[in-house]
Amino acid sequence: MAIITLLTDFGLNDNFAGVIKGVMLRINPKIQIVDISHNINPQDILEGAILLANSFKFFPKGAIHMAVVDPGVGSERRPILVKAGDYFFIAPDNGILSLALKDEKVKKIIHLTNKRFFLKPVSDTFHGRDIFAPVAAYFSLGRRIGDFGRPIKKIKNLELPEVRFEKDLLIGEVIYIDRFGNLVTNIRKENFNDFVGKRDFVIEFKGILLDTISGSYSERDRNSPLAIWDSFSYLEIAINQGSAKESFSARIGSKVYVKVSFR
Amino acid sequence: MAIITLLTDFGLNDNFAGVIKGVMLRINPKIQIVDISHNINPQDILEGAILLANSFKFFPKGAIHMAVVDPGVGSERRPILVKAGDYFFIAPDNGILSLALKDEKVKKIIHLTNKRFFLKPVSDTFHGRDIFAPVAAYFSLGRRIGDFGRPIKKIKNLELPEVRFEKDLLIGEVIYIDRFGNLVTNIRKENFNDFVGKRDFVIEFKGILLDTISGSYSERDRNSPLAIWDSFSYLEIAINQGSAKESFSARIGSKVYVKVSFR
Amino acid sequence: MAIITLLTDFGLNDNFAGVIKGVMLRINPKIQIVDISHNINPQDILEGAILLANSFKFFPKGAIHMAVVDPGVGSERRPILVKAGDYFFIAPDNGILSLALKDEKVKKIIHLTNKRFFLKPVSDTFHGRDIFAPVAAYFSLGRRIGDFGRPIKKIKNLELPEVRFEKDLLIGEVIYIDRFGNLVTNIRKENFNDFVGKRDFVIEFKGILLDTISGSYSERDRNSPLAIWDSFSYLEIAINQGSAKESFSARIGSKVYVKVSFR
Repeated sequence: MAIITLLTDFGLNDNFAGVIKGVMLRINPKIQIVDISHNINPQDILEGAILLANSFKFFPKGAIHMAVVDPGVGSERRPILVKAGDYFFIAPDNGILSLALKDEKVKKIIHLTNKRFFLKPVSDTFHGRDIFAPVAAYFSLGRRIGDFGRPIKKIKNLELPEVRFEKDLLIGEVIYIDRFGNLVTNIRKENFNDFVGKRDFVIEFKGILLDTISGSYSERDRNSPLAIWDSFSYLEIAINQGSAKESFSARIGSKVYVKVSFR
Repeated sequence: MAIITLLTDFGLNDNFAGVIKGVMLRINPKIQIVDISHNINPQDILEGAILLANSFKFFPKGAIHMAVVDPGVGSERRPILVKAGDYFFIAPDNGILSLALKDEKVKKIIHLTNKRFFLKPVSDTFHGRDIFAPVAAYFSLGRRIGDFGRPIKKIKNLELPEVRFEKDLLIGEVIYIDRFGNLVTNIRKENFNDFVGKRDFVIEFKGILLDTISGSYSERDRNSPLAIWDSFSYLEIAINQGSAKESFSARIGSKVYVKVSFR
Repeated sequence: MAIITLLTDFGLNDNFAGVIKGVMLRINPKIQIVDISHNINPQDILEGAILLANSFKFFPKGAIHMAVVDPGVGSERRPILVKAGDYFFIAPDNGILSLALKDEKVKKIIHLTNKRFFLKPVSDTFHGRDIFAPVAAYFSLGRRIGDFGRPIKKIKNLELPEVRFEKDLLIGEVIYIDRFGNLVTNIRKENFNDFVGKRDFVIEFKGILLDTISGSYSERDRNSPLAIWDSFSYLEIAINQGSAKESFSARIGSKVYVKVSFR
């Protein structure tokens, strides 16, 4: 049974996600549809890109990942279907796929131009329903990728804010805040290790100093701040059994400093 | 595999929606259950009716749509099972089906009286679990519709607030606000076209004048207001990449005026 | 098709619940995954325990219930797999299973020590993904329960706040508040009946007196307070078509008094 995952900013109050599933099931009743999230902040492409990049590999090979955060719906941005690594991706070409595809071998990019596979008429406001959902469902039936449009060379790129280096400083920032108020930064484990090496370090966040990476939340006292590798290998600032977001009044973009001392 | 859709005001915090699925799967493990929404405003039958009317046709023919917004649970309102057009509907008879069935050929209405198909005991507070869910599941097994109770003639009606006409004015109002803050009005495309014909028009909403219907959100500048046909063919007031709800402090019931000028 | 239910505090904004499903489907594509709730208050084990106890029996026999509210993730608390009554349970051993298992015949408790069934590497922050999900999926394939670790004797216990008796008073409290603002207390129908017997009674809540248990919400006038047996047989304080939570500024822990008078 083909698997189609959904990552959107449609929310769960309206009928958007449900209608999309209906459209898919009309075309292929034998699919397993899995919600990754429908609660991406409205029109926040970067947030969608981060969650997709952290999710797609956990699904069975061959899964079709449909990601629709689409502020440009109805404009010239292209709807695309991508084969990369062991997976397929369907999305507007606005950067939402770029973080997921960064380290994947992109094998084919198709601009979805074949209207045979669209709902009729195509609205100007809901391509999730009218273009992406039916294409995903027809594709899951085993049709050849080339049937859906014409090959193109490149997708739109979107970059995470990059970490910066200043002498003995590594400067990162909060790029994602989860339900528990944990603050995920753009500092990846390998970047950190390359930079720090065997030197001592101190992580500074909002005036708090942390000189270790904890092995688990509960290594620290309740309500104590800590730094930890999150489950996707990014540096995370957290509070054991509390919300770092609230304690620190932290936001997307809040800066994190890693300082090394030479010994 | 039979498809059962769920539209309720049970929310996603409690275990109500999950328990309903458990009840169904005990009776028929071979169903595909699809959530349309569980976040209808508590006890807001009209909102449920609007979303159901805008959703049911996107599902495969034969789908069983269960809609439970049920402030009268435990009272005399009747639980019903309806065959209409290509679909089946299970709901309390409180008007929640009336917008969906307005243009459908209603073939059979059954008052659910056969307690054989209810959970035992039937609580007075959760007929979703005790009546509607098991009936939907037994019905999905292929039982005849007449087995579930006795035929009745009419369902309860619920009307959308109607548009009004005053000389050269068409007066509508906001009937639904979606996650993006888009304001869906009760002005349908065909009503609008009939009224306006080939004349010039101006749409007035909260002091703003709009003299075109945009083809897409992105036709307008970022943060500009616009009028557009929503994906279900209602007139919608929106802000490109913003929230019309917030910008206009709009609410359900806010008035929209379409004015024509004779030339 | 095996059924796995999910009850967590992961929320629906992040990708946690979606990723868990991906992990499971990689191992066993033929499972039906049902969400009970992902919106348990963050790290509120007792709330999770209450919802699980009120949910698990509504699912088909043999269902695997995975419950992850896990403030101690990465610490010494044990991951366990339990066979009890007609169901299986997978959870951290922190009390979340204790209310569900209270009246069930516990047949086997396995401490999950066999790392063969874990994702590699196991993170210190997301055992839902790395331990519980893959174990649930491998177990659903039909593996013997003993393969997953070594038997232990007891699980951690967690008690609901108990009702108290003072002369002619039964004192309970609010233990759960649902989406509608209904206040679920810890007074079970059988406790109430044992205590009250055939005597007259009065229920006092926040200064309001109620001398009957209503048969349905709608027996009372709109916006009137009432006492009712909730659908899981606990005493509930509610407002017909309103929110008792808001009307009474009620909270978890708010006291409810049942007073009898001797005649």
